[in-house]
Amino acid sequence: MAASYTHLRVDITDGIALVTLDRPEVYNATNDVLHGELTRIWRDLDADPAVRVIVVTGAGDRAFSAGGDLGDIEARAALPAEERFEAVVRVMKEAEAIVYEMVNCEKVIISAINGVAVGAGLAVALMADISIIAEEARLTDGHARLGVAAGDHAAIIWPLLCGMAKAKYYLLTCDFIDGREAERIGLVSRCVPRAELMPEAMRIARQLADGPQHALRFTKKALNQWLRLGGITAFDYSLALEMLGFFSAAPAEGARAIQEKRPPRWG
Amino acid sequence: MAASYTHLRVDITDGIALVTLDRPEVYNATNDVLHGELTRIWRDLDADPAVRVIVVTGAGDRAFSAGGDLGDIEARAALPAEERFEAVVRVMKEAEAIVYEMVNCEKVIISAINGVAVGAGLAVALMADISIIAEEARLTDGHARLGVAAGDHAAIIWPLLCGMAKAKYYLLTCDFIDGREAERIGLVSRCVPRAELMPEAMRIARQLADGPQHALRFTKKALNQWLRLGGITAFDYSLALEMLGFFSAAPAEGARAIQEKRPPRWG
Amino acid sequence: MAASYTHLRVDITDGIALVTLDRPEVYNATNDVLHGELTRIWRDLDADPAVRVIVVTGAGDRAFSAGGDLGDIEARAALPAEERFEAVVRVMKEAEAIVYEMVNCEKVIISAINGVAVGAGLAVALMADISIIAEEARLTDGHARLGVAAGDHAAIIWPLLCGMAKAKYYLLTCDFIDGREAERIGLVSRCVPRAELMPEAMRIARQLADGPQHALRFTKKALNQWLRLGGITAFDYSLALEMLGFFSAAPAEGARAIQEKRPPRWG
Amino acid sequence: MAASYTHLRVDITDGIALVTLDRPEVYNATNDVLHGELTRIWRDLDADPAVRVIVVTGAGDRAFSAGGDLGDIEARAALPAEERFEAVVRVMKEAEAIVYEMVNCEKVIISAINGVAVGAGLAVALMADISIIAEEARLTDGHARLGVAAGDHAAIIWPLLCGMAKAKYYLLTCDFIDGREAERIGLVSRCVPRAELMPEAMRIARQLADGPQHALRFTKKALNQWLRLGGITAFDYSLALEMLGFFSAAPAEGARAIQEKRPPRWG
Amino acid sequence: MAASYTHLRVDITDGIALVTLDRPEVYNATNDVLHGELTRIWRDLDADPAVRVIVVTGAGDRAFSAGGDLGDIEARAALPAEERFEAVVRVMKEAEAIVYEMVNCEKVIISAINGVAVGAGLAVALMADISIIAEEARLTDGHARLGVAAGDHAAIIWPLLCGMAKAKYYLLTCDFIDGREAERIGLVSRCVPRAELMPEAMRIARQLADGPQHALRFTKKALNQWLRLGGITAFDYSLALEMLGFFSAAPAEGARAIQEKRPPRWG
Amino acid sequence: MAASYTHLRVDITDGIALVTLDRPEVYNATNDVLHGELTRIWRDLDADPAVRVIVVTGAGDRAFSAGGDLGDIEARAALPAEERFEAVVRVMKEAEAIVYEMVNCEKVIISAINGVAVGAGLAVALMADISIIAEEARLTDGHARLGVAAGDHAAIIWPLLCGMAKAKYYLLTCDFIDGREAERIGLVSRCVPRAELMPEAMRIARQLADGPQHALRFTKKALNQWLRLGGITAFDYSLALEMLGFFSAAPAEGARAIQEKRPPRWG
Repeated sequence: MAASYTHLRVDITDGIALVTLDRPEVYNATNDVLHGELTRIWRDLDADPAVRVIVVTGAGDRAFSAGGDLGDIEARAALPAEERFEAVVRVMKEAEAIVYEMVNCEKVIISAINGVAVGAGLAVALMADISIIAEEARLTDGHARLGVAAGDHAAIIWPLLCGMAKAKYYLLTCDFIDGREAERIGLVSRCVPRAELMPEAMRIARQLADGPQHALRFTKKALNQWLRLGGITAFDYSLALEMLGFFSAAPAEGARAIQEKRPPRWG
Repeated sequence: MAASYTHLRVDITDGIALVTLDRPEVYNATNDVLHGELTRIWRDLDADPAVRVIVVTGAGDRAFSAGGDLGDIEARAALPAEERFEAVVRVMKEAEAIVYEMVNCEKVIISAINGVAVGAGLAVALMADISIIAEEARLTDGHARLGVAAGDHAAIIWPLLCGMAKAKYYLLTCDFIDGREAERIGLVSRCVPRAELMPEAMRIARQLADGPQHALRFTKKALNQWLRLGGITAFDYSLALEMLGFFSAAPAEGARAIQEKRPPRWG
Repeated sequence: MAASYTHLRVDITDGIALVTLDRPEVYNATNDVLHGELTRIWRDLDADPAVRVIVVTGAGDRAFSAGGDLGDIEARAALPAEERFEAVVRVMKEAEAIVYEMVNCEKVIISAINGVAVGAGLAVALMADISIIAEEARLTDGHARLGVAAGDHAAIIWPLLCGMAKAKYYLLTCDFIDGREAERIGLVSRCVPRAELMPEAMRIARQLADGPQHALRFTKKALNQWLRLGGITAFDYSLALEMLGFFSAAPAEGARAIQEKRPPRWG
Repeated sequence: MAASYTHLRVDITDGIALVTLDRPEVYNATNDVLHGELTRIWRDLDADPAVRVIVVTGAGDRAFSAGGDLGDIEARAALPAEERFEAVVRVMKEAEAIVYEMVNCEKVIISAINGVAVGAGLAVALMADISIIAEEARLTDGHARLGVAAGDHAAIIWPLLCGMAKAKYYLLTCDFIDGREAERIGLVSRCVPRAELMPEAMRIARQLADGPQHALRFTKKALNQWLRLGGITAFDYSLALEMLGFFSAAPAEGARAIQEKRPPRWG
Repeated sequence: MAASYTHLRVDITDGIALVTLDRPEVYNATNDVLHGELTRIWRDLDADPAVRVIVVTGAGDRAFSAGGDLGDIEARAALPAEERFEAVVRVMKEAEAIVYEMVNCEKVIISAINGVAVGAGLAVALMADISIIAEEARLTDGHARLGVAAGDHAAIIWPLLCGMAKAKYYLLTCDFIDGREAERIGLVSRCVPRAELMPEAMRIARQLADGPQHALRFTKKALNQWLRLGGITAFDYSLALEMLGFFSAAPAEGARAIQEKRPPRWG
Repeated sequence: MAASYTHLRVDITDGIALVTLDRPEVYNATNDVLHGELTRIWRDLDADPAVRVIVVTGAGDRAFSAGGDLGDIEARAALPAEERFEAVVRVMKEAEAIVYEMVNCEKVIISAINGVAVGAGLAVALMADISIIAEEARLTDGHARLGVAAGDHAAIIWPLLCGMAKAKYYLLTCDFIDGREAERIGLVSRCVPRAELMPEAMRIARQLADGPQHALRFTKKALNQWLRLGGITAFDYSLALEMLGFFSAAPAEGARAIQEKRPPRWG
């Protein structure tokens, strides 16, 4: 299976699949290829009898995944109308798939958030069933900076993680949240010193891989009804609204501003 | 527009509407006039192209808004049956409107909770999308003290703010919660020293007013599906049950006891 | 009424019913008799005009209730197929009843969690409207240790107590949570030093028993719509999935392993 | 058990409990006693191992149950304020219980609608799992005639029976619906000539009583999640709104007008 | 009030507001002006104490309202990108408002569907609480013909009117449905011969205007929770998806094909 | 792709995939192989750019699909406990997949119900977006005959097809429904004479395949939120309850009785 992935490294050992987002030269940002791979990996691992538990992390020391490639966003904005429409529909479908494939994956997924997580990277980090973060790692949803609605995963789970007041604050302001604060407000399961991150994630993975699989999977399955409820009310809608925003001028300006390290001019 | 409000001051500057509950002599308590104005202001500001973000606060140093005028409650209790019924239906309609007009207002609303907030005042404080509170400001829902169900806003959002165990505890006991505790349990977005309250609220308002409006509004719109879900299950029902309580002897006794600063005799 | 209970002590004084889980020799674990009694007590007390508020705690110093009798679980696993099926259906019905009878009980229920709480005991502790815990008391759901899904109460309320990330972490790992941590993450209403537990629980009970009953009950009734929503989506399903697990080999092995104080071999 | 009912006849034969609303001299209208009995009968029969299926019908030739005693409504309207409040809360609780006890009764309930069904009688007729009606039997909800909201059962199930357009039409106009039309629009399961009503109801009861009980009860249990969803959104709310209406002048006038066979003057 | 409408005639007589969509020369199709007016009329009438019940119909003999002006759609498709985006957002907001203002209007709305109803016109016809149709009048949603998703109202109510199998069939094929068939499948409340349409609509309006207003409005309010549930799950989402479609080439081709009376070439 | 299916024939012509359940010698009953194929086919066709619309029918003249192989059910009942548990979990997973893969398939699915449809076959017939039935074709859910809960698809859609009263009646009694009646009560989209079945199904498929794909798929996507709502409340639960029933003695007896053409003895 590993053969079929370009930007994901997949190591399966003794029931644990370690999935590494592997574009360290760009902070493991998701380009079109990686974005697509993140829609397929969960179902592949779910079908693999050698896998009991999944751990996902980012390659290198600095990043879990720094969001989407800004170049891809600009390129999409520059497409002729009909191609742009098709491209946006494809992105919508993929963003939906990343979230729901993680929700519907029977096996427990643990994220080890080793560094900055933004955009689709944050979606993977927080849609994991168990999320362990390094103290100094920093998170932000990032959509508002780009000029589109927070549609990648936030609406399905943030109100059930950190409550509505914190959720709206961080999703609207795009302030960064460090590991300790993320744990304090409930956005992640646990926060540990960086050196302990992978050992702790692997220790939990080991415990769960040695545990009663049906019991664990049924527990996940039942708890996830809350997420499915958030899906049909808030998330699917948020995603369609985000996509709508790609037909405004905002995301091209947002992407340029981030690249040029200047404040955006939203007009 | 400002002309049409008696107890609300509305200052619109550079895309930010600053709305001040303005009855400082009674801790900005809501009387019938102010209650009605709080149902209309959000739609008015939503329709005003000069406004991009809304900040709401209380006049003076001591209060955001100290709930409803107790005299109005007693007066209502003393009405002949049919007039009382009509009055209660009107209050139900207005209380519903305050909550849903804030939920449905496209523009982001920020509350700067500068002092005590109770009853309808608390509804405005906590239904804001972003809520910033001064450390020493104190909150309580207050309905149980008055002898009616917590119907003004609590059921739509408290379980999604501070969780069910805290929500029930505070709504049933009516214990006061200060700013720090409110932030710790997730009831508000942020807590700051009093001197920083308005500067911080205005700084955030400025940032959002300069931000990508469609993206911010769509993010609010999608997240609010959770509130609409809480609305059709818990809140609308809580409001009808609160109104039912106005036909018992409790609220008249509750109002008298508060005014006479004595424990109520619920009988 | 007290006459009809074997393992529950019920003392009704001045409007407050104090219910004590009373099998201190086994940490107040639930056997079939006590499990059945926990389905009936809430309706009985609801119908009793002498009762206004209910407090529930465990007998002795060490335990609120240490889950289900492991012997009962092993005995059930040893039954002939058809009897086992009937037994499992009966357990499902009772587990459902414990949760929903507490939700539907009009009167406010306060749990004073004086020591370890596991399984059905934890269900009673956390389904109470107000939960006060001693600092050193320890909680764990325990189902995953037994090898079945967390179906007794967790899915209806944990995501609304401590958020999804903490809920999944603790329900999947079965790590113990002490009183302070339980309060910090929102799992309980309050945490107090052990010596203050019963005085504080009774002080709150006194305040509520002296309060406006319709207002308090209507507030509970309306807030509980969130739980009923969690019931028809996540909880009922979790319970059916847990019961399914009783037809696997896991729970017999889990029960034996706990009794033999050795790690389970899930196979 | 039969001993404990005044206005219900209960005959249990060979697994089938035949429940007869038995006040033929007043078209089996529900007075306070019968209303209360209709809240208890389902749980009693559910607990009785001799019962596998329940059939409910009306005594005599002309009526299933002609709604509530108008005298009771007028008497309630004449009570002093506080007693009236308590009486209304009691009615709310009972109306809620009739609906939910039928929904939660594990055993299949079949109504044989032998004549006119109105109000609480209609609630019993339509909340049955299977409803068989005589061709010439006539139904109407009747609440709007009385001057209060249709809160007894309609909102939980009508939109899922006959669709929203028919539901609103009949609930707002209170037009009578005969058996054939009721079947055509889906309000009941089947319509048969009067002479075949009881034989057909008993034939189906026999078939189901001889059927696989767990399968039938689980099927009912799962399908009823739709009703529970309608309960927490529309029905509970409708009931609170109906009760609110009892504090207006409408129901007393409505009751008088019906008794005096004149059009009401709603004022 | 009538003064403020260009394409709506509003006649208020004796508690009944008769609203006429009044562009008979174009089959009462909605242009931008009329579309906007249909968002405001319900709230205006709700606030008018002279109005108790609302009847809405189309001017002339042939049409209730034949959907949206195709010219407007083409003009929108020809706008520069950013203006087009703003225009689409405005349409989304208005389409949302038409549906929710009708749902939230306290007063009962009756549609008298006197002729063809398509698009936004069909939304008004079917979102009315009571819908009476002339036998030969014909309905179709029409969105699929235009090349966009059925987002104007269908997803909120069709599954609760005619069931999912019929809903999908007609919404996907855009086959016309005549009055008799519409009644048979539950899409409308009643079907009558054309000559009886207005008399029957006015007769019902008269009856309801003379009826107990709070009871009728509360009944509507409670039943509409089902629609609000459909709103936050299916309708809001359908609308965002429809709007997304306006950035594809389909609607311009769809509009041209309809105008040129030729089959569309969807490509 | 066709190569990978044993009991499904797949013919793709001009955008239309015709899928034929192909075991005519056993009325196209689903054995383990076909059951598994029915979980995969929809995703495969969704991913195939050559396919725009899907038609599914049964091979031969007599059957769409006559439910599950009774032999498989008996074999499963005879397995040792742990294998039986694994087998039941696998069936649950597949039954869930058949329903959700049809719901989540972007492309419109049309069923041409050419003969008897039972069990999993009925699930495919009725979960299709558009269902066309031959007049004399007969349907029954069949689960109650087998002695397990109706968990394969019924709870997700029947109440939204034919209403609750008809749904419960047919699901509890297992009475057969012919094509005309199925159409009358809304269970299917259309009923036609047998000779017109395939031509009509293909005519509609042609029309839709020539239609605007995004518009059609978005319409399906949005309407299906109702099914997803039914999924997380009623269907997932019904499936778990059905599976539970496989550990009772009922299904083995049910399967034997059907094979021996004698009434079952449920005991």
